[in-house]
Amino acid sequence: MTIEVDYYFPESIDPERQAQVIAVGQTVGTWDARFTHREAQLRSHLATVVRVQPEASGGHIATIQFPEINVENDISSLLTMIFGKYSMAGLGKVVAVRLPEDYGQFPQFGIKGIRQQLQVFDRPLIMAIFKPALGLSAADHAAILEQVAFAGLDIIKDDEIMGDLAVAPTLERLRACRQVLDQVQQKTGRRVLYAVNVTGSARTLLDKARTLVRAGANALLLNALTYGFSVLEALGADPEVNVPIFVHPALAGAMCAGTDTGLAYSVVLGTLMAHGGADAVLYPAHYGSLPFDPMEEQKIRDGLRSRQVFPVPSAGIHPGIVPQALADYGHEVILNAGTGIMDHPDGPGAGVQAFFEALDRVQEGGSFERDSLPEGPLKTAIQKFGH
Amino acid sequence: MTIEVDYYFPESIDPERQAQVIAVGQTVGTWDARFTHREAQLRSHLATVVRVQPEASGGHIATIQFPEINVENDISSLLTMIFGKYSMAGLGKVVAVRLPEDYGQFPQFGIKGIRQQLQVFDRPLIMAIFKPALGLSAADHAAILEQVAFAGLDIIKDDEIMGDLAVAPTLERLRACRQVLDQVQQKTGRRVLYAVNVTGSARTLLDKARTLVRAGANALLLNALTYGFSVLEALGADPEVNVPIFVHPALAGAMCAGTDTGLAYSVVLGTLMAHGGADAVLYPAHYGSLPFDPMEEQKIRDGLRSRQVFPVPSAGIHPGIVPQALADYGHEVILNAGTGIMDHPDGPGAGVQAFFEALDRVQEGGSFERDSLPEGPLKTAIQKFGH
Repeated sequence: MTIEVDYYFPESIDPERQAQVIAVGQTVGTWDARFTHREAQLRSHLATVVRVQPEASGGHIATIQFPEINVENDISSLLTMIFGKYSMAGLGKVVAVRLPEDYGQFPQFGIKGIRQQLQVFDRPLIMAIFKPALGLSAADHAAILEQVAFAGLDIIKDDEIMGDLAVAPTLERLRACRQVLDQVQQKTGRRVLYAVNVTGSARTLLDKARTLVRAGANALLLNALTYGFSVLEALGADPEVNVPIFVHPALAGAMCAGTDTGLAYSVVLGTLMAHGGADAVLYPAHYGSLPFDPMEEQKIRDGLRSRQVFPVPSAGIHPGIVPQALADYGHEVILNAGTGIMDHPDGPGAGVQAFFEALDRVQEGGSFERDSLPEGPLKTAIQKFGH
Repeated sequence: MTIEVDYYFPESIDPERQAQVIAVGQTVGTWDARFTHREAQLRSHLATVVRVQPEASGGHIATIQFPEINVENDISSLLTMIFGKYSMAGLGKVVAVRLPEDYGQFPQFGIKGIRQQLQVFDRPLIMAIFKPALGLSAADHAAILEQVAFAGLDIIKDDEIMGDLAVAPTLERLRACRQVLDQVQQKTGRRVLYAVNVTGSARTLLDKARTLVRAGANALLLNALTYGFSVLEALGADPEVNVPIFVHPALAGAMCAGTDTGLAYSVVLGTLMAHGGADAVLYPAHYGSLPFDPMEEQKIRDGLRSRQVFPVPSAGIHPGIVPQALADYGHEVILNAGTGIMDHPDGPGAGVQAFFEALDRVQEGGSFERDSLPEGPLKTAIQKFGH
């Protein structure tokens, strides 16, 4: 089997030459008469430039096939091969990676498993983020969770910058919140997932994940790009970490925001996460305050879904956007709102209710015009956040 | 203590506004009347824009101070805070990070420890890379090592794309090479380091590092950016991994090559590695086939040295460049050559000899003009690779 990679080269780069440099330089590296007797072995590792096509921009896309035997069925060795040293060799961007279906990992839970746990099958899931990101105690977290969980929320997550801090240690946050989750289940029969941010140097992090799961964590959050794909894979493959892993895209822009450098967002947050062991992946929605290309967003979503990983469009998600989000994304999606829930004028619980009111209203074909809305959480949300 | 970060914003970005967005958005995230009673706590986590200065380019540099209590004394949580979500917020590049001296880790060995192990104190160290990168068996590795180690080489490393492959498993490579290292020590009294590439998903990798060290590995190589800073930190802090860790910069270009996006090379390969637990860090020399800014290279070198981490300029290093390299870098450096040693016309052993001949000749003030050189490895190297 081969691994196929599309590299975009801007107009200033000779695409045939650069593609050839990568195909050799990122595999066998050098040829020498001393190794003539091993030519067959060397050739089995060599990548091949399969085509170079002009783009409307004046640049080109070169497609290179790499032998799968060069890598270790994981994302880290894949990245080292396809864009390791030659990421430093001038302009060029990885815009697509096509992997064999069995390359890497499948999600342990993914769309089906997460829906199964929540027993919700027929609508988008609604997810919130604890805010403010920093400065809350464990008890504050529990108080917020109580409001949103009883209001019907499906999933909540730590803010990605909330680590294991002296002011609110992760295990304390979990313990305080776990009591609330249990109360919700006892009183309503509903399960709510809390994705706890797992942090630390790699061994600490992996051990902490097990500790958290033993202490009742029913989901984890990982900043896969700042901690490393190898950490995501270890969590995904750990039988003791038998809870869904939500991946946050922190740092993705450092690799993906350049026009002619790095890797496309759809590669990093779509393809690589989908083969890297994630159960659900957050990424910027194009509605949000972060500028984001709708086409790239669509590729991320489709790449994730193609392997049953739950897409989680985030940023700019609020109740007024629900009709548009349903039209754009369909049902197989987790709508993730931070301020869109937490900053509702009537409190986070009303923020959650506004989302469900919005989902029902779309279902019933009701108008979202402000004047046509009944008094209540949705109208208040739209008055604050707009459509 | 605070963490100070310089962000470069190109002309199209309002630097005051964007800096303020980052200072709030990457710390407390949101303010709300509900949290007025906790304002002191929130304020203790809030970052501050300390200055915004115009650049000659028309852009600006904004300096933001972040409270150290927001992060976990490691690189991953630092990256999440300083450039997590807001790496996706349009143009902007992290061009400098100033950390408290005790932030993160110091190298376990670094310059002093590596020199101590080799008992070489008065000259640059010479390092080679096994080539071809892929396609060699464990026995081939040992045969190459025999040539270069007896010729006087200080350090050899796996190519960064040589993983733990079925065709040449890491432990087999190590065992075959370890015998050679022992022979060299017995016959010459010299110790040679072999930095074995350690790979795999995080838990596997960390366990494999211990296994390799128990099996006689006296150095490790890590692609810290494709596996993750958290893995580097775990290796650096592991008492069972009591060998120097050499870091390869694979993938650095994906984060650093953009003009207006990502992070500067000097931040990623200098500052972050120097606080991340590396003992020696490879980075592109500006002599090489990879285009590289000499100023940025200098900052990497100085950032590493400031914490006693060994700088390892790589790419384009060959015997003819030695006078220039000594003038540019001084003695406190590891000169790392791939093809510059392996492709010497008289074989890798002669490649190593050519380097030592070059070091001696600089010492003696001898000329490097081709006609003035005696017949031998250096002259042959210069005939092939030039100056």
